[in-house]
Amino acid sequence: MAIKVGVIGAKGRVGSAVVEGVGEEQDLELVAEIDKDDELTQLTDAGAEVIVDFTTPNVVMDNLEFCIRNGIHCVVGTTGFDDERYDQVRAWCKENPEVGVLIAPNFAISAVLTMVFARQAAKFFDSAEVVEYHHPNKLDAPSGTVVKTARGIAEARREAGLDAMPDATEQALDGSRGADVDGVHVHAVRMTGMVAHEDVIFGTRDQSLTIRQDSYGRTSFVPGVVTGIRNVADNPGLTVGLDKYLGL
Amino acid sequence: MAIKVGVIGAKGRVGSAVVEGVGEEQDLELVAEIDKDDELTQLTDAGAEVIVDFTTPNVVMDNLEFCIRNGIHCVVGTTGFDDERYDQVRAWCKENPEVGVLIAPNFAISAVLTMVFARQAAKFFDSAEVVEYHHPNKLDAPSGTVVKTARGIAEARREAGLDAMPDATEQALDGSRGADVDGVHVHAVRMTGMVAHEDVIFGTRDQSLTIRQDSYGRTSFVPGVVTGIRNVADNPGLTVGLDKYLGL
Amino acid sequence: MAIKVGVIGAKGRVGSAVVEGVGEEQDLELVAEIDKDDELTQLTDAGAEVIVDFTTPNVVMDNLEFCIRNGIHCVVGTTGFDDERYDQVRAWCKENPEVGVLIAPNFAISAVLTMVFARQAAKFFDSAEVVEYHHPNKLDAPSGTVVKTARGIAEARREAGLDAMPDATEQALDGSRGADVDGVHVHAVRMTGMVAHEDVIFGTRDQSLTIRQDSYGRTSFVPGVVTGIRNVADNPGLTVGLDKYLGL
Amino acid sequence: MAIKVGVIGAKGRVGSAVVEGVGEEQDLELVAEIDKDDELTQLTDAGAEVIVDFTTPNVVMDNLEFCIRNGIHCVVGTTGFDDERYDQVRAWCKENPEVGVLIAPNFAISAVLTMVFARQAAKFFDSAEVVEYHHPNKLDAPSGTVVKTARGIAEARREAGLDAMPDATEQALDGSRGADVDGVHVHAVRMTGMVAHEDVIFGTRDQSLTIRQDSYGRTSFVPGVVTGIRNVADNPGLTVGLDKYLGL
Repeated sequence: MAIKVGVIGAKGRVGSAVVEGVGEEQDLELVAEIDKDDELTQLTDAGAEVIVDFTTPNVVMDNLEFCIRNGIHCVVGTTGFDDERYDQVRAWCKENPEVGVLIAPNFAISAVLTMVFARQAAKFFDSAEVVEYHHPNKLDAPSGTVVKTARGIAEARREAGLDAMPDATEQALDGSRGADVDGVHVHAVRMTGMVAHEDVIFGTRDQSLTIRQDSYGRTSFVPGVVTGIRNVADNPGLTVGLDKYLGL
Repeated sequence: MAIKVGVIGAKGRVGSAVVEGVGEEQDLELVAEIDKDDELTQLTDAGAEVIVDFTTPNVVMDNLEFCIRNGIHCVVGTTGFDDERYDQVRAWCKENPEVGVLIAPNFAISAVLTMVFARQAAKFFDSAEVVEYHHPNKLDAPSGTVVKTARGIAEARREAGLDAMPDATEQALDGSRGADVDGVHVHAVRMTGMVAHEDVIFGTRDQSLTIRQDSYGRTSFVPGVVTGIRNVADNPGLTVGLDKYLGL
Repeated sequence: MAIKVGVIGAKGRVGSAVVEGVGEEQDLELVAEIDKDDELTQLTDAGAEVIVDFTTPNVVMDNLEFCIRNGIHCVVGTTGFDDERYDQVRAWCKENPEVGVLIAPNFAISAVLTMVFARQAAKFFDSAEVVEYHHPNKLDAPSGTVVKTARGIAEARREAGLDAMPDATEQALDGSRGADVDGVHVHAVRMTGMVAHEDVIFGTRDQSLTIRQDSYGRTSFVPGVVTGIRNVADNPGLTVGLDKYLGL
Repeated sequence: MAIKVGVIGAKGRVGSAVVEGVGEEQDLELVAEIDKDDELTQLTDAGAEVIVDFTTPNVVMDNLEFCIRNGIHCVVGTTGFDDERYDQVRAWCKENPEVGVLIAPNFAISAVLTMVFARQAAKFFDSAEVVEYHHPNKLDAPSGTVVKTARGIAEARREAGLDAMPDATEQALDGSRGADVDGVHVHAVRMTGMVAHEDVIFGTRDQSLTIRQDSYGRTSFVPGVVTGIRNVADNPGLTVGLDKYLGL
């Protein structure tokens, strides 16, 4: 039997892509689309088993409280969570121990895998650097994903007791060696026409390993959300990060 | 204290690179170099704790019997092992249960990781293909490594219950879609100047993930052999494949 | 003063992107949008100096006759031209010698440059192969662009008197070495999420050169059409192929 | 008939690769190998028609004077040339107008083509950046080749009257956007195992073009030197840069 899914924020750019994505899966049934002026009771009326929430920081907590208390599992891509909020969600989950809640900053499955593999590979290589490529309208450099990836690499190297990376550079044009994120050099390219792309590069004797992630469009989060919907009921309590669901 | 290492086949192309590589590591001490006309007792005389064997199918079994019976751990890159040989090694190990033996077809750590990551990633993507690039003197196409990678992907897809990959091709020039290895399309490029390179490409909605492996020279197996030497004593019995040592 | 542009086929998928693209350029002014039920005289009424035609084989010739006879330059991306049609266009141009007509099968400037550079580079390398990557809904393999690129490489090699490429392959899985297009091996990958991508790879002693073209979206032809509009008046008579306008 | 070639600096790392490379070509005949203690008259005695000079700044001018005065064409990869030295060579050539002299800072044909194509492509794209990858023992960042490539792109953009590249970056980690070379952002990666690699990336609406150059070994200059030897007699006078011989 299909899983009954409700989407909160169903008319937003992301939410509407989720609505469409859910509609394409045979094992998922869309039973409710909630937007700003709709009542959350539509979810219970429709018998939703899982909700997907891509809304805003100021409404997401109310949504979660309602759903958890009504035994509805939650897959959440809304931003703005901090420790205090996580603790609140954990408290609600404690009172409803059968409910699963997945909160993830990134649902693009290729980006999540890149981060996981980068952390796994880090200890086997002398060198590691990251190059990211985005459209030129992006406001920050490097991307948050890449900073996180670099920190994961740095942490794995520390845990493995690796030395600093070899680098004999004596004369460098300012900026040419990139930004230093915990000892990992990170470079950001801005290029008209590109969307979002990332190379995590590792090198050791006579070889390199590159993990390349390409996003070509704006709905790359959909497969990750679908993975979340399918697995959230089997993961009671709060889970932060889609990687926990990937079984790696 | 440094691990005492003996190299069998020390004057061969591979063996001499191992000798050099061992010499560069502070936690390893080279105590014996054995080649064709040397006695294996040099290993016991020198107090070797681990041997590395890159020799030939017709002598490797004698080497292993001697070492295992003398309590020396073995890291083996020699080819030609089949089930019968593995069983023989297991029998010797049973009599000497503290001894570890690692036999691996591929010690290039980036290639081994590529295979492991490919298997892990496979179930999350609709499409997967492999492109390998080698120098034009290579006799077989595609490479054995790539066939193995493709089989791993196919197996992971089957286990996850994935459908066949989408492919609407109606008109194709013969060969343009590559070779079919268990449903995974595999392409082999032959290019003067190149050494050995591999792209494992996965795609799903609006995104792709590429795991790229580059070998630039002939000593890319050295870091993997060193990893083997460091870990073989902690892995008693027979282990086939370097991936088992990587803790992934 | 801005160039006055009319778009024929203005409501089609391609035509509407041209309309939008022309609107973004300060030196171009959109003066007429013609679709199925509109009269071509709107073009003359509006004083169009250049038209862009992305229509269908069965109406394009009438459009061209009207425009050329009225002194309007033409930039044409419609398909279905053969020698007979080119001769007819040349005949009309002969009667109106000041009019320029550009007919091009491909307006994606990065794809056109890839083809030009591939032809230029070919004679300096021992090996050359092409790998193309497309979404899995594509019906033909390899793409027409890639076949053309391969033929250009083969022709340049013949003109330079190069030998056949080195290839020692003795054992090959069927299809693994790709399709043979005039001696150039061509490989086609089909991958969910991808759009249209091409690697033209050249190799010689200890080095390779790769020309990579990526299309990320469906309006990659717009910059080429704009280049066509700006230059067509300076190129009287029939020109086939955007490359002739690039001054390379 | 084969061209008679002398190599000066024949025992140096580069010179000995040239000796070997010349030996592999059927249309070239090695007639003299000169090193430190040898007399240049060996060249005239052996009837050398072309010399290759990979020596040092302090001896190259004497070598050139001798060869030019004796009617021997010169292919020169030695460094340290400035305007004064070029003028001196031109003066010798004026007295011996049939002699050709090629002085080039870079004989790796793929690197030279990358620079030429980058300059040709520059004016058709909104964005352009360069990423280079080298082994970690390199002392300078970015490489001289890449700085030159970036300057060529900047010059081509200026000549075409292009605006500054789009870049909305507001918050950037220091160095993340690379070094600014005449407005072109340049990034340098240092990676154990790598040799010398370069990506020149161009982007415009919905597309990008990447020219990638890979050096896998230390003899990548040989094909360019051979091209020089074959063409120098047909190019009397001083030529600076191998690109002039490529007929592009």
